[in-house]
Amino acid sequence: MDFAHSESTQQLIAQVHRFVHERVVPSEAIYRDQLVDTADWTQWKIPPVIEELKAEAKRLGLWNLFLPDAEHGAGLSNRDYAPIAEVTGRSFLAPEALNCSAPDTGNAEVLVKYGSAEQQQRWLAPLLAGEIRSAFAMTEPAVASSDATNMRATCEVVGDEVVLNGIKWWTSGAGDPRLGFFIFMGVTDPSASRHTQHSMVLVPADAAGIRIVRMLPVIGNLDEPHGHAEVAFDDVRLPKSAIIAGPGRGFEIAQGRLGPGRIHHCMRAIGAAERALERLCERAVQRTAFGKRLVDLGGNRDIIANARMAIDQARLLTLKAAWTLDTRGTRAALTDISAIKVIAPNVLQTIADAAMQIHGGQGVADAELHWLYAMGRVLRIADGPDEVHRHMVAKLELAKYA
Amino acid sequence: MDFAHSESTQQLIAQVHRFVHERVVPSEAIYRDQLVDTADWTQWKIPPVIEELKAEAKRLGLWNLFLPDAEHGAGLSNRDYAPIAEVTGRSFLAPEALNCSAPDTGNAEVLVKYGSAEQQQRWLAPLLAGEIRSAFAMTEPAVASSDATNMRATCEVVGDEVVLNGIKWWTSGAGDPRLGFFIFMGVTDPSASRHTQHSMVLVPADAAGIRIVRMLPVIGNLDEPHGHAEVAFDDVRLPKSAIIAGPGRGFEIAQGRLGPGRIHHCMRAIGAAERALERLCERAVQRTAFGKRLVDLGGNRDIIANARMAIDQARLLTLKAAWTLDTRGTRAALTDISAIKVIAPNVLQTIADAAMQIHGGQGVADAELHWLYAMGRVLRIADGPDEVHRHMVAKLELAKYA
Amino acid sequence: MDFAHSESTQQLIAQVHRFVHERVVPSEAIYRDQLVDTADWTQWKIPPVIEELKAEAKRLGLWNLFLPDAEHGAGLSNRDYAPIAEVTGRSFLAPEALNCSAPDTGNAEVLVKYGSAEQQQRWLAPLLAGEIRSAFAMTEPAVASSDATNMRATCEVVGDEVVLNGIKWWTSGAGDPRLGFFIFMGVTDPSASRHTQHSMVLVPADAAGIRIVRMLPVIGNLDEPHGHAEVAFDDVRLPKSAIIAGPGRGFEIAQGRLGPGRIHHCMRAIGAAERALERLCERAVQRTAFGKRLVDLGGNRDIIANARMAIDQARLLTLKAAWTLDTRGTRAALTDISAIKVIAPNVLQTIADAAMQIHGGQGVADAELHWLYAMGRVLRIADGPDEVHRHMVAKLELAKYA
Amino acid sequence: MDFAHSESTQQLIAQVHRFVHERVVPSEAIYRDQLVDTADWTQWKIPPVIEELKAEAKRLGLWNLFLPDAEHGAGLSNRDYAPIAEVTGRSFLAPEALNCSAPDTGNAEVLVKYGSAEQQQRWLAPLLAGEIRSAFAMTEPAVASSDATNMRATCEVVGDEVVLNGIKWWTSGAGDPRLGFFIFMGVTDPSASRHTQHSMVLVPADAAGIRIVRMLPVIGNLDEPHGHAEVAFDDVRLPKSAIIAGPGRGFEIAQGRLGPGRIHHCMRAIGAAERALERLCERAVQRTAFGKRLVDLGGNRDIIANARMAIDQARLLTLKAAWTLDTRGTRAALTDISAIKVIAPNVLQTIADAAMQIHGGQGVADAELHWLYAMGRVLRIADGPDEVHRHMVAKLELAKYA
Repeated sequence: MDFAHSESTQQLIAQVHRFVHERVVPSEAIYRDQLVDTADWTQWKIPPVIEELKAEAKRLGLWNLFLPDAEHGAGLSNRDYAPIAEVTGRSFLAPEALNCSAPDTGNAEVLVKYGSAEQQQRWLAPLLAGEIRSAFAMTEPAVASSDATNMRATCEVVGDEVVLNGIKWWTSGAGDPRLGFFIFMGVTDPSASRHTQHSMVLVPADAAGIRIVRMLPVIGNLDEPHGHAEVAFDDVRLPKSAIIAGPGRGFEIAQGRLGPGRIHHCMRAIGAAERALERLCERAVQRTAFGKRLVDLGGNRDIIANARMAIDQARLLTLKAAWTLDTRGTRAALTDISAIKVIAPNVLQTIADAAMQIHGGQGVADAELHWLYAMGRVLRIADGPDEVHRHMVAKLELAKYA
Repeated sequence: MDFAHSESTQQLIAQVHRFVHERVVPSEAIYRDQLVDTADWTQWKIPPVIEELKAEAKRLGLWNLFLPDAEHGAGLSNRDYAPIAEVTGRSFLAPEALNCSAPDTGNAEVLVKYGSAEQQQRWLAPLLAGEIRSAFAMTEPAVASSDATNMRATCEVVGDEVVLNGIKWWTSGAGDPRLGFFIFMGVTDPSASRHTQHSMVLVPADAAGIRIVRMLPVIGNLDEPHGHAEVAFDDVRLPKSAIIAGPGRGFEIAQGRLGPGRIHHCMRAIGAAERALERLCERAVQRTAFGKRLVDLGGNRDIIANARMAIDQARLLTLKAAWTLDTRGTRAALTDISAIKVIAPNVLQTIADAAMQIHGGQGVADAELHWLYAMGRVLRIADGPDEVHRHMVAKLELAKYA
Repeated sequence: MDFAHSESTQQLIAQVHRFVHERVVPSEAIYRDQLVDTADWTQWKIPPVIEELKAEAKRLGLWNLFLPDAEHGAGLSNRDYAPIAEVTGRSFLAPEALNCSAPDTGNAEVLVKYGSAEQQQRWLAPLLAGEIRSAFAMTEPAVASSDATNMRATCEVVGDEVVLNGIKWWTSGAGDPRLGFFIFMGVTDPSASRHTQHSMVLVPADAAGIRIVRMLPVIGNLDEPHGHAEVAFDDVRLPKSAIIAGPGRGFEIAQGRLGPGRIHHCMRAIGAAERALERLCERAVQRTAFGKRLVDLGGNRDIIANARMAIDQARLLTLKAAWTLDTRGTRAALTDISAIKVIAPNVLQTIADAAMQIHGGQGVADAELHWLYAMGRVLRIADGPDEVHRHMVAKLELAKYA
Repeated sequence: MDFAHSESTQQLIAQVHRFVHERVVPSEAIYRDQLVDTADWTQWKIPPVIEELKAEAKRLGLWNLFLPDAEHGAGLSNRDYAPIAEVTGRSFLAPEALNCSAPDTGNAEVLVKYGSAEQQQRWLAPLLAGEIRSAFAMTEPAVASSDATNMRATCEVVGDEVVLNGIKWWTSGAGDPRLGFFIFMGVTDPSASRHTQHSMVLVPADAAGIRIVRMLPVIGNLDEPHGHAEVAFDDVRLPKSAIIAGPGRGFEIAQGRLGPGRIHHCMRAIGAAERALERLCERAVQRTAFGKRLVDLGGNRDIIANARMAIDQARLLTLKAAWTLDTRGTRAALTDISAIKVIAPNVLQTIADAAMQIHGGQGVADAELHWLYAMGRVLRIADGPDEVHRHMVAKLELAKYA
C-alpha cells in the first residue's frame, strides 16, 4: 500500500499547479471583463484571454492530459490524471485552458474509442487541437433521465440516412460560438433488447433542423459563453455513417464514458472544495468582529476542521475509485464510483455554503463563491442525482446478503 | 393556552390567502414577462401588473397590514400580523402587492414613531399610499456590520446642516425607479456613549452627492427592478431637520425596528418554506422513475416528514415570539427572536434545496425554486448572521448560571 | 392566540416544580443507595424512600394529576397536564412519586373508561391509591409490533373462560414486587374484521401460567426494581369477565390510550432534555481546560444555543398537540402527535449525548446522564419507532395532493 | 499510488479473519455464559474460553501482531498491522484472544522502547506471553486530562525511592485477576520545563498503598472481568529503578504511544462499524413489516449507503495516517491522526445507533449492539475528546495562513 503519486505524476501536478495559480487564476478577472454581459446567447463572444491561455498550455505540454490514449492524448491512467483534475477544479477557467473540460473530454474519448477514421479526422482532430468545442445531447426535459429506458428522442435509420427527432436539454456548450458538433443519443430500435435500442450520432452543429429553444440558468447563471441549452432536433437528417460505431451501440458507449467522467467531476469538485476552504480560512483570519478574528469566534474552527476532514476523505475515496478502475475494471469500481458521486459534490456544496456564510453580505454577491456553490449543487443532480447513486451503493451492499 | 387565531385574524388570513392565490400567484409569470431583462439598472422599469395588484389590494383593504399603528395602518398586533406575513411569503410579488415589503415596512414604522409632522406628510404619506418606495442604508462593506460599533459612515452636524459621508451596501430597493428616500444611519458624535453616537437621517433619493456604485447580485439574481446597491454618500448636505428624532438616537431607533422586522422576515420565510414543500410534494406525486412515483422511492417520504415537522415547529416559535413581543416586550422576547432568526431561514434553505433536488435538472433552472433558496440563504446573513443570533441565544441561556 | 398557561395551571406547575426540586431530586441518591444491586430480579425490593415521597405527594394533592377523569383523578385536560408532565421528566423518580408513571397511567385510563365496576373496585382503586402497580403486555419479540396485524398472542374465549397464550416482551414493571395485574392484549377472533380481532384482558399478577422468561436490559440498565420483562403466558385461564369491555374491543382501547400517552412521554422527554441542558451548562461554566472555561472553547455555545432552540420548538409543538387533542379530537391531532413522537426523543438523545461529551470521562459513567440518554434512545423505538411516525406524517402531508 | 496490501499482509488478514470468524465469534456466547455476573469486582473470574483462544492463537502465530519490534513481536509496520486491527474490532473478544488489546499494547511498546533489561525480563516477557495483563494510570477525575499540564498526581524521588501519590481513573483492566502491573504517570519536578516534569513508573499490582476506589460503568457496562477503575495511590513507595527511562521522561514516552495507539483504536472502530453494518443489513433483509422487508421501507437503503460510504472513507484516511506515520513520521501525520480520531468513533456510533434502531425493541437489549455503540461513544472521549482533535486539525489548517 502506497499513498504517494509516482515521481512523474508529482512533477506534472506541480507544473499544472504552477500554471493554474500563476497564469489561469490571475486571468479570471480579465476573462470576466471581456465577457459580453447579455442574456441573449446569440451575442456571446469568446473572451480572447482564454485562447491565449490555451496556446500557452499547449506549448507547455499541459494539454489533453485527460485522454488515456497515448496516441491522441497524454496517455495517463485514471489514477495519474485524477490529481491533475483536482488542480483544474480550483479555477472555473482551468479545465478549458488545458483543453480538459466536459463534455469535450467524454466526447473525445468516445471518438477515440468508437469513431471512424473519418470522424476522427474531421471532428476529433480539431477538438483535441482546441479549435472547436462539442456538446452532448442526452438528457431530456420531460422524463427522469436517470432511468435510461425513459428516453424519447429517436434516431431512426431510413435508407442511407439517420433521422433525428426529439427535445434535449442541459446540452452544455451549445451556446459556444466555437461549437463544432453534438453527440446525440436516441432510440433507434424500440423493439431491440433493453441495451441495444439506442444509438449515438455525431451531428454537425450547423445541421438543418437543430434549434436552440432557450438557455437554462444554473442557480442564476447562464454560464455564458458556453450555455446549457434546451435543443430541439426536428427531422435532422444525416448520412448513416454519422452513427458512432453503428446502430444500437449507444447504451454501451454511454456506459463506457461514465466511470472516468465521474472521477473527473469528483476530483474537480474536490479541487473546488479546497478553493472554498481557502476562501473560508482567508476570511476567518483577516476579518474581525467584536474585537476578535472570526477564527476565534464561535464554532468556526470546527467548521474548518470538518471541512479538512471531509475533503481528505473524499479525495482518498476518489483516488481509490480511479485506482480500482485502472487495475480491476468498471465492475469492481461500481460502489466507489457511485459513492464519490454522492460524496464529493456534497462536500463542495457544504464548504462553499460555509464560505459564503463567513463572508457575510459579500458572500452572497461574490462570483467565485457563487460558482463554487453552484458547481457542487449542480453536480448533485447532473450525471445521476444523489438518490440514484445512494441506491446503487445500497444495492451493491445488500447483494452480499442475498 | 390557546393556539387558535382570533376570529377576525382568521378572516383576514383567509382573505389574504385568497388574494395571493387567485390574483398574485397567477400574475407572477406576467410580471416576469414585463420585466426589462438587463443588468443595466438605469434601464429598469416597473412591470405594470404590480401596480394593478396594488390598486386591487388597496381597494380590498388588504393594505399596510403590517403597520401596528391604527391611525396610519391596520393596527394589528405582531401576533395578528404574523400569519398574514406568512401568507405573503408564498409569492415573491405578494409583499409588494400588499404594500408590506421590506424595507418600506421598517422605514414606515420609524416615521410613524419618530418622524416629524413634516416628514410624515412629505414621505410617510406617499409611502403608505404605495406611490413611492424607500431604502435603508445601514450595512457597510468594509466592516462586520453585526457589530454596530464598527460603523464608519458619518452624519456630522455642521451649523444648520447635517453632512453625510460613507459607503453603504445591501441598500435594497435603491435601483427602484420609484425610490423616494433613503433612511441613512451614521455616526454623529464618536465621543458620545456607545448607544448615543449614531443618528438616522431621511435623505431624498435625488439629493446631491449620492452615487450608486453597483448593484449586488444575490446568489446570481439582481432582483430587478429593485436591486441591492452599493451606494456612496459623498458630502450629502441636508437641513438638520432631516435627522429623525434628532441627533444621537440612531441606535435606539434601529433597536426598535429589529423585533417586528425579524418576525416579518421569519414568517415570510415560513410561508416560502410551505411553498417549497408544496413544490416538492407536487413533484413527488407526479413524476415517475423506474416505474414508481418519486414519493415511493428512497427516502423522499422522510424528507417530506422532516420538512413538515421543521416548518410547524418554526412557525409556533415565531408566533410565540410575536406574542411575547406583544405581551411582555422586547427584552422578554430576545431569546425567541434570535432563535427564530436562526431557525426559519435554515428551514427554508433546507426545504428549498430538497425541492431543487427532487426536480432534477429542472430544479437548478427553475426561477421560483431559485428565489425560495436564495431567500433562505440570504436571510441567514441579513439582519445578523446565524452565528450572532446563536451566540445571543447561548448568552441568554448561560446567564441563568452566572 | 395565547401562549400563557391558565392561572391554576401555573400554580400547579409551581407546586410540582417545588416538590420535584426540593423533595424528589434530593432523594435520588438515597433511592439508589437503598436499591438492592443485583441482576436477580426475584431479589428486588422497593426502596423505602419512594413510598415516603408518594405519601407526601398524596398529602399535597400532587397525585394522579395525569387522569383527565375528575372523579377518579385530577380532571386536567391534556394541555393542562402536559407542563406538569414536563416537570416530572426532570427526575427519574418523579413520575412514580406523583403516581403518574407509565404504564400505570395508560392502564388506569383504560379502567376508568372501559373497566367494569368490579374491575374498578378491585384493581383501579389500589392502583390510584399507589398500593399496587401494573404492567402492559402488548409487544411481542418475534414480530414487528408497529404493525398490529402481526400480533400472535391469543386470548380465546372457551365457554365461560378466556384462555391466554403467547410470548410478550418489554412488559415494563413486570419485576416490581408490588405488581398487581397485567393488561394483556391478544387475538380473540382472527376471522373478524381487522379492527375487531383483538381483546384486552385484565390478568392478576399471580395467575397460574405466567412466567417471567428474563428481564431485558435497556442500554445496559435493568431498571430495577421495575424491570422490562419477556413474559410467557401459557394457558392462563380467567373468567370471561376479565376481558375489558368485552371481546373484540382491544384495538379500539389501544388506539384511545395512544394520544395522551405519547404526549406524556414527549413532555417528560422535554423535561429530561431541560435537565440534560442544565447539566451541560453547569459543566460548561464550571470546568476549565487550557486556561479557559469550557463555555469559551470551540463550538460549545453553538451546542447550547441549538439545544435551547430544539427544546423550545419541541415543547410548543407538543403543547399544540395536546391542545388539538383537547379541542379538536384525535384525528385532527394525528400529524402533531406523530411529529412530536419523532422530535422530542431525538432532541433528548442529542442533548444527552452532548452533555455526556462535555463531561468527558465522567460523562460515560454518570448515572443520571446515562438515564437521560437511555430515555431518549428507548423512546425512539417504544410506542412506534421514528420510522413509523415519520411515515405517518408524510402520509398525512401527501394526502393533500391526492 | 497503490491501494493494495502486500501479499504477506493479505495472507495474514485472511488468517486472522478466519480465526476471528471461525473461533472467536462463536466463543462470544460461551464467554458471556462463563462470566461471573456480579457488580462486586473482587469476585470476578476469567472465563476459561479466552485462555483456550489465546493458546490457539499463539500456536497459529497470530500473536502480538501489534508489536512493530521484530525481536519481541511480529515486526509489522503500522500500515501492515492496521488492517489486522480492523479485523479484531469485529469481536469484543478478538483483541485479547490475539494478545493485542489496549492498554497492554501501548504498555508493551513502552517497555520495548524504554524498559530496562530487568523490567523487560520481569514484566514484558509475561505480558507478551499472555500470562499477565497491565493497566495504564494516567487520567485523573478532577481535571481536564486532555490538557496534560493539569495532572496532579505526583511521583517524587526521595532518596533511592520514588513515592507515588494521587487519584487516577479510567484505569482499564485494573479489575482483572491477572493484573501484573500498572504504568503510572505523575509529576516528578513541577519546576522543570513543561515537557520534562512528568515521569512514568512501573508499579507492581500488589504494591502497598494502591486502593481500587470503585469500578466505573461505561454506558451501563462494568466490562467485567477487566473493569475501569478509579484508583488511589497513597504513598506507594518503589525503588527509583521503577521509573521508566528515568525521571522527567513521562511526557516524551506518552507522546510516542499516541500515534500507533490511535490508529489501533480507529481501525478497531472501523471493524466494529463493519460489524454494526452487517447486523443492520441482516435485520433489514430478514425482518418484514407492513408486508415488506425493512430494506424496502422508508429511508433504510439511504442509511445503508451512507454507512458504507462513511466506513470506506474512514478506513482510507486511517490507512493513510498509518502509512504517513511509517514513511514520514509523527509530525507529518498529525492532521490525519487527529482527523481519524474524530471520524472513526463517530462513524461507529452513528452506525451502531442505526443498527439499534432497525432492531426495534431488541436493539436496546442486545449485548453486541450495546457493545458496538458504547465502544464508539467512549472513544469519542477517550484519548482526547472530539473537541480537542478538531481543534488540532483546525490549528494545523490555519497554520497555512499565518
